[in-house]
Amino acid sequence: MSLAEARADASTGGDIAAEMTAIGRAAKTAAHRLANATTKEKNAALKAMASAIRRNAETILADNARDVADAKEAGTTGSFIDRLTLDPARVEAMATGIEEIAALADPVGTVLAAWERPNGLHIERVRTPLGVIGVIYESRPNVTADAGALCLKAGNAAILRGGSDSFRSSGAIHACLVEGLESAGLPAEAIQIVPTRDRAAVGYMLAGLRGAIDVIVPRGGKSLVARVQSEARVPVFAHLEGVNHIYVDRDADLEMAKAIVLNAKMRRTGVCGAVETLLVDAKVADTHLRPLIVALKDAGCLVRGDERSRTVAPGVTPATEGDWSTEYLDAVISVKVVDGIKEALQHIERYGSHHTDAIVTNDQAAADRFLAKVDSAIVLHNASTQFADGGEFGMGAEIGIATGKMHARGPVGVEQLTSFKYRVRGTGQVRP
Amino acid sequence: MSLAEARADASTGGDIAAEMTAIGRAAKTAAHRLANATTKEKNAALKAMASAIRRNAETILADNARDVADAKEAGTTGSFIDRLTLDPARVEAMATGIEEIAALADPVGTVLAAWERPNGLHIERVRTPLGVIGVIYESRPNVTADAGALCLKAGNAAILRGGSDSFRSSGAIHACLVEGLESAGLPAEAIQIVPTRDRAAVGYMLAGLRGAIDVIVPRGGKSLVARVQSEARVPVFAHLEGVNHIYVDRDADLEMAKAIVLNAKMRRTGVCGAVETLLVDAKVADTHLRPLIVALKDAGCLVRGDERSRTVAPGVTPATEGDWSTEYLDAVISVKVVDGIKEALQHIERYGSHHTDAIVTNDQAAADRFLAKVDSAIVLHNASTQFADGGEFGMGAEIGIATGKMHARGPVGVEQLTSFKYRVRGTGQVRP
Repeated sequence: MSLAEARADASTGGDIAAEMTAIGRAAKTAAHRLANATTKEKNAALKAMASAIRRNAETILADNARDVADAKEAGTTGSFIDRLTLDPARVEAMATGIEEIAALADPVGTVLAAWERPNGLHIERVRTPLGVIGVIYESRPNVTADAGALCLKAGNAAILRGGSDSFRSSGAIHACLVEGLESAGLPAEAIQIVPTRDRAAVGYMLAGLRGAIDVIVPRGGKSLVARVQSEARVPVFAHLEGVNHIYVDRDADLEMAKAIVLNAKMRRTGVCGAVETLLVDAKVADTHLRPLIVALKDAGCLVRGDERSRTVAPGVTPATEGDWSTEYLDAVISVKVVDGIKEALQHIERYGSHHTDAIVTNDQAAADRFLAKVDSAIVLHNASTQFADGGEFGMGAEIGIATGKMHARGPVGVEQLTSFKYRVRGTGQVRP
Repeated sequence: MSLAEARADASTGGDIAAEMTAIGRAAKTAAHRLANATTKEKNAALKAMASAIRRNAETILADNARDVADAKEAGTTGSFIDRLTLDPARVEAMATGIEEIAALADPVGTVLAAWERPNGLHIERVRTPLGVIGVIYESRPNVTADAGALCLKAGNAAILRGGSDSFRSSGAIHACLVEGLESAGLPAEAIQIVPTRDRAAVGYMLAGLRGAIDVIVPRGGKSLVARVQSEARVPVFAHLEGVNHIYVDRDADLEMAKAIVLNAKMRRTGVCGAVETLLVDAKVADTHLRPLIVALKDAGCLVRGDERSRTVAPGVTPATEGDWSTEYLDAVISVKVVDGIKEALQHIERYGSHHTDAIVTNDQAAADRFLAKVDSAIVLHNASTQFADGGEFGMGAEIGIATGKMHARGPVGVEQLTSFKYRVRGTGQVRP
C-alpha cells in the first residue's frame, strides 16, 4: 500500500498517531518489496542517491544554513552547532559514504551454514533482512544519509527521526534518498523521515508503530539512549557510553604504551572509542606512569589520578569516585595505579561499560588472560581503543557500536542489520 | 559472592524483593566463573547431574507424586496432569537428555570469524556466554533439567522459575543439578531455582533483577509468552504460537502430499511444529484435495474448510475467519483452496505466525519462490513441518523455537544461548 493509501487508511485518532501509523504500514509494505530486491536494484538506488546529493548540494546547504541560523538564534553553541553545520566537503563526504555502502557485499541471501541430515534433509541458514528499522538520532544531518543507505543495503525499510534542529537539512537530504529509490524503481517509502518536529512522534516509534518496527537504533548521547531503552517496547540496538580502559601491564613497552595511550585519548576525544581511564601496574609506576602522564599533559590533556599516581607525577588533580565511571568525551583522563592484572580486571568489571578495553604488554599470557576475562564488545592487545569502528574493522560504514549482548554487539554494519531463516529442502521426508 | 552473602547484602525492602535481588547477584557472580569454566568442568558437572538424577529417582518421583496429588485435588485434569506427571521412564529420559547435552560441542570460545587488516591488526569474532538467563516455564518438571543443563553447557548461569504446581518436583530435580555442579567444583549458584511459589517473583525476573538477567526465555503456552513479552524489560527469546501452513501446489505429487500433511498434522497434534492450515492450489482441488481430506478424516482429524473446499469433499464443517489464525494444537485442521502460489503467499503473510511453513511441489521454481518469499523462521520444501525441532536440525537439545527476528530465530540450542565479542591483537597500532 502506498503512503497515501495507508494514510487514508489510518484509523487511529489524533493527527500524529494517524500519521505515524500510516508511516509504519507503508514501511512494512516497502520492506516486503525490499526483502526481494536484487543487489543490482539496491546498488543502483544508492548510486543515484549519491548523485542526487551532489546535484542538490546547494539546496541542502541552503536548508542547513537556515537550521544553523535558527539554532544560533536559540542560543545553542559549540560542538552542537559544529555537528549540525554542513559545508561542501561534508556534503561530498555523504555522497562518497553512500557510494562506499553501494560497494559493500550484499549480506542478504548469504548462506551462513548448510548441512545435510542423515534422513537427507538439506538445511541452510540464510541471511534475511530484519524488516523495518527505526533510527532515532540527534541533530547530525549526515546520519540521515548514512542510516538510510545502510538500512537499504541490508534490504530493510527505514523510518528516520533526526533531531528537530536539523529538520530542514535532514528533509533536503531525505529528498535525495527518495529520488535515488524512485530512479531505481524501488518504493519511496523504503526510507521515510518523520515529517514533524513533534517529540510525540518518538513515543510512537518506541511503541513500535503497532508491530511495524522490528528494531530501534538510537544514535546519540547518553540521555537519548537512556530514554529509548526505558521506553522502547521493541528490541533496541543500544549504544551505551564508552567508559574505556587501557591497562599498562608490568611487561609493557613504554614507547608503545605512550603511543597507544596518546592516540586512544587525544586523536579524537569526542568518539565513543576514546579511552577514559588509564590503569598502570604498580610494578612499573615509577618507570612508565610518570612519562605517560607527562606526555598526556604535554598533549593538553587534563589528568585526574588516585593517590598513588599523584605521588608519582606532579600536576595531577585528585580523582573522585565519580571519575572512574565517567565518559569525559573530552581532553581529560583518569589514572589509577593497580596491583597487577587482577586488580585491573576487577576495576574494569566494576566501572567499565563493556564497550572497548585494551591491554599493553609483551607478556602473551597476560594478554590472553585480559582478552578472555574482560567482558566487553571489543578487547584489544597492543592497539589503540580508537580502532573501535566499523570502518577500521573492515565492515564498511557502521550505524553505531552496540554494547548489548544480543544480536548486534560491537560495530553495527550491514551484516548486523540482518536476520536469518532456515531453508529446508526435502524429498518427501516425514518425521518418525 | 555466595548466595548467603548476597542475601545478607540485599538492600531492597520486601522479602521477595530482597530474595530475588540476592538470587540475581549470586547468578551474576556465578556467571563470571562459568564464563571461564573449561569444557571439561562443564561436562563433568553435567554427567554428575545425570547420575544424581538416577540416584535420586525415588525422591524425585515421591515429590512429584505429592505435586500431582495436590493438582488433582485442586481439580486440574487432562493434559496438564500428564505434563506434570513423572514416571521412571521420564526420569531416565531427563538423565539421558543431560548426557546428550554433555556430548554436544562446547560453543564458547569458538572463533566465528577471523581476519587481518591492512595495518596488521588481527581481528577475531569469538563466541562468549550470554551471562544470566532467566527461564520461565509451566508445570513441566523435566524443563528444569533441560533448561539448566543447556544454559550451563553454553557457560551461562540460569535462574529457573517453573510452574507452581511442579514446585516440589522441580525442587527435587534442581537439588540433583546442584549436586552435579558442586561435585565438579562449579558454583551451586550457577543454576538457581526461585524458592517461592509467589507469582510476584516472576515480575521481578521480568524487570531483570536490577540488571542481573541478560535474557528471559519463556517456555510455555500463549498466555505465559504474552505476559512475558508485555512485561519484560530485558530481551526475550519469545516463542509465539505456530500457525503453520502447508501449501499443496499444482505440481505436487499426491502421495507425497498425503504423507506429509498427515504427518505434519497427526504425528503429534500438540507440538508447535504441527500444521494448522492446509492450502491447496485450485488447479488440483479435484484430484488432490478430496483424497487429502478423506485421509485426514480417516485419521480422526476434524476438517474445517472454506466454501470451495466444502464443495469438493463431504463432511467438512465451515471455517470461520477466526480459524485461519488459530493454533489448534489438536486433531483439527483448516483447509482453503487458493488460486496458485501467489494467493497462498498472501494468506500465509496475513494469517501466519512466521514459525514454520512448507510447500509440496515438484516445480523447483515454485519451491524457490516459496522459500524466498515466506518470512518464517523455518520454511520447508517437500518435508513435514514437524521437523521444526532442534534435535531434528542436528543442534542437539533445544530450549524452544524462537519466532522473533533478533539473535535467536528457529530452534534455540546451545549456540543460540551465546553472545560474542571481538578479540583484536596488534603490535602497537595507533589510528591515523
